[in-house]
Amino acid sequence: MSHTNKQAITLDLDRFRSLVDYGLKELDWSVAQPTGLYAPMDYFMGLGGKRLRPALCLMACEMAGGVAQSALPQALALELFHNFTLLHDDIMDESPLRRNQSTVHLRYGLNAAILSGDALLIEAYSRMVQAKPELLPDLLNEFNRVALQVCQGQQLDMDFQGREEVGLSEYSEMIGLKTAVLLGSSLKIGSMMGGASAVDSQAMFKVGYLTGLAFQVQDDWLDVYGDPGRFGKQIAGDIKACKFNFLRVLAWEHSNSVQKQLLSQRFSEIKRLDGTGLEINHELVKSIVMVYDQIGVTQLAFEFKSNYLKAIHKLIFEQNFAHNHYRSILYGYCVSLINRDF
Amino acid sequence: MSHTNKQAITLDLDRFRSLVDYGLKELDWSVAQPTGLYAPMDYFMGLGGKRLRPALCLMACEMAGGVAQSALPQALALELFHNFTLLHDDIMDESPLRRNQSTVHLRYGLNAAILSGDALLIEAYSRMVQAKPELLPDLLNEFNRVALQVCQGQQLDMDFQGREEVGLSEYSEMIGLKTAVLLGSSLKIGSMMGGASAVDSQAMFKVGYLTGLAFQVQDDWLDVYGDPGRFGKQIAGDIKACKFNFLRVLAWEHSNSVQKQLLSQRFSEIKRLDGTGLEINHELVKSIVMVYDQIGVTQLAFEFKSNYLKAIHKLIFEQNFAHNHYRSILYGYCVSLINRDF
Repeated sequence: MSHTNKQAITLDLDRFRSLVDYGLKELDWSVAQPTGLYAPMDYFMGLGGKRLRPALCLMACEMAGGVAQSALPQALALELFHNFTLLHDDIMDESPLRRNQSTVHLRYGLNAAILSGDALLIEAYSRMVQAKPELLPDLLNEFNRVALQVCQGQQLDMDFQGREEVGLSEYSEMIGLKTAVLLGSSLKIGSMMGGASAVDSQAMFKVGYLTGLAFQVQDDWLDVYGDPGRFGKQIAGDIKACKFNFLRVLAWEHSNSVQKQLLSQRFSEIKRLDGTGLEINHELVKSIVMVYDQIGVTQLAFEFKSNYLKAIHKLIFEQNFAHNHYRSILYGYCVSLINRDF
Repeated sequence: MSHTNKQAITLDLDRFRSLVDYGLKELDWSVAQPTGLYAPMDYFMGLGGKRLRPALCLMACEMAGGVAQSALPQALALELFHNFTLLHDDIMDESPLRRNQSTVHLRYGLNAAILSGDALLIEAYSRMVQAKPELLPDLLNEFNRVALQVCQGQQLDMDFQGREEVGLSEYSEMIGLKTAVLLGSSLKIGSMMGGASAVDSQAMFKVGYLTGLAFQVQDDWLDVYGDPGRFGKQIAGDIKACKFNFLRVLAWEHSNSVQKQLLSQRFSEIKRLDGTGLEINHELVKSIVMVYDQIGVTQLAFEFKSNYLKAIHKLIFEQNFAHNHYRSILYGYCVSLINRDF
């Protein structure tokens, strides 16, 4: 199993990412007309990103015995779809920045952001359909289902903003829809393109789904406990924005009545301040983190991730792929995503 | 040709419309979760409409020798897509009313309008793919192309708003993209579902495309010269909103330098007043209509429509369909759309 060492993992993923970058370069909407529609699309796709979903799609295709290149249209479709959701979410969340650059609605205006987002979704479909006709029904039913679930997840996320508290299971369900199904689908669609059976493709979906959930737990843990220099976001941004995340719902789920009262009080105070536009007191944030520490959220988050990793390992190694040496690479990739510190 | 009489036409269209209404009733999102996503979709689809595109799709399917029912998913897809474009266009145009009811962004808020529009587009795709696998590549390439063109048309329309004048050919191109291609595609997709050849389906596309252009000419003529009681919109709404339409670009195209100066001056004045929020002087609108009359825009619009109708007649009667008696019904339908007075 020489492929399990770190260098081999990197090299393989680099190959998939290069293929994705090549495919994205081919899109080139820099001169497409009308400019008002295509310039925002070109700008947004050019902001970069980890290209995680398309890379997973290509890897899954090859694991199943296909040629990665043959799943490139679907890989690009997944990346275009992901960017469509980000572009419209940025409007809904009133986000000023995306990857440290202006969001589309601030740079080009609301109308351009709505319309160029719509066009990205259509461009995603244009690429998803580039497959053998006999694959299209399953491929498109999968894509349609997931696309709709992502919308449902975004709606649930917005619904949560008006709530006092959110339970762990409903929060997991929301993240499952908003984030995890697309990671699951990236592996599943890649598997389907590579010729995997329905059972194997579904197992790959679960691998991606669980990775997506655990990835989010880590993201939310880093929000409070990450190294600000490495993580690249402001520390405790979710607390300051009074947003629900895994850490907050885990803490709530495991807190006693005194801790619950403290958390409620502090978050209400932040919400009140947020309405006034006044700066949030650093001590206020600190006092919430102290309750988190008392409850032991780090331990809780790590147990959560560890359980997911066990399930992911089982799913991957129970299966037989055309290229079994990829199992370790895929698992290593999942581990690195879930344990990343930036 | 007993089917050419008016009663037969009505009866046939009624049958297609009933099928569409039945299909739309099946959608029923009134209890779907999350409510925040589905209630706006349910509301918007419930506002009604002529259901023109799905009816054309079903008729084309039957003309080509298919069973209308078999094209119902595609017919619904076209109606869902049309409603997606209306819902997002209403945001972009800041329209308060759609079919005399509140628009979605005013009733449910901006975020709900963006997200439920996105979901309508995905629901459209979910239905478009319900066809035999061997039909899917052509069907989806057609749908993707048209979907993107509609976005391009909407962008061009918005680009025009900032302009001083717009030429007839570029205005036709914009309406072609924004409106006419979807009518063309409704006939084309129906034909494809009914088993028509590529050549015949493309001829049907042209029938729909030309009908769409002529339909818009009539719509714009009615805006000024229609019976307000029957037409159901405020008279000269486009002039008062300083919007370009076919009448305005036809008038400009055929005006002499004195008339051009008059039109420019009056429209600038309206634009200026629009910015201040002051009511637009009725005399100002009247003076523009007087220049229109002088130029003879009614005659120009009627020639325009008449040329299109000739081309449509030729296209329809040059073809051989599985059910040739439908040719007269289709032509009669196109005529009634293009000459409608409400």
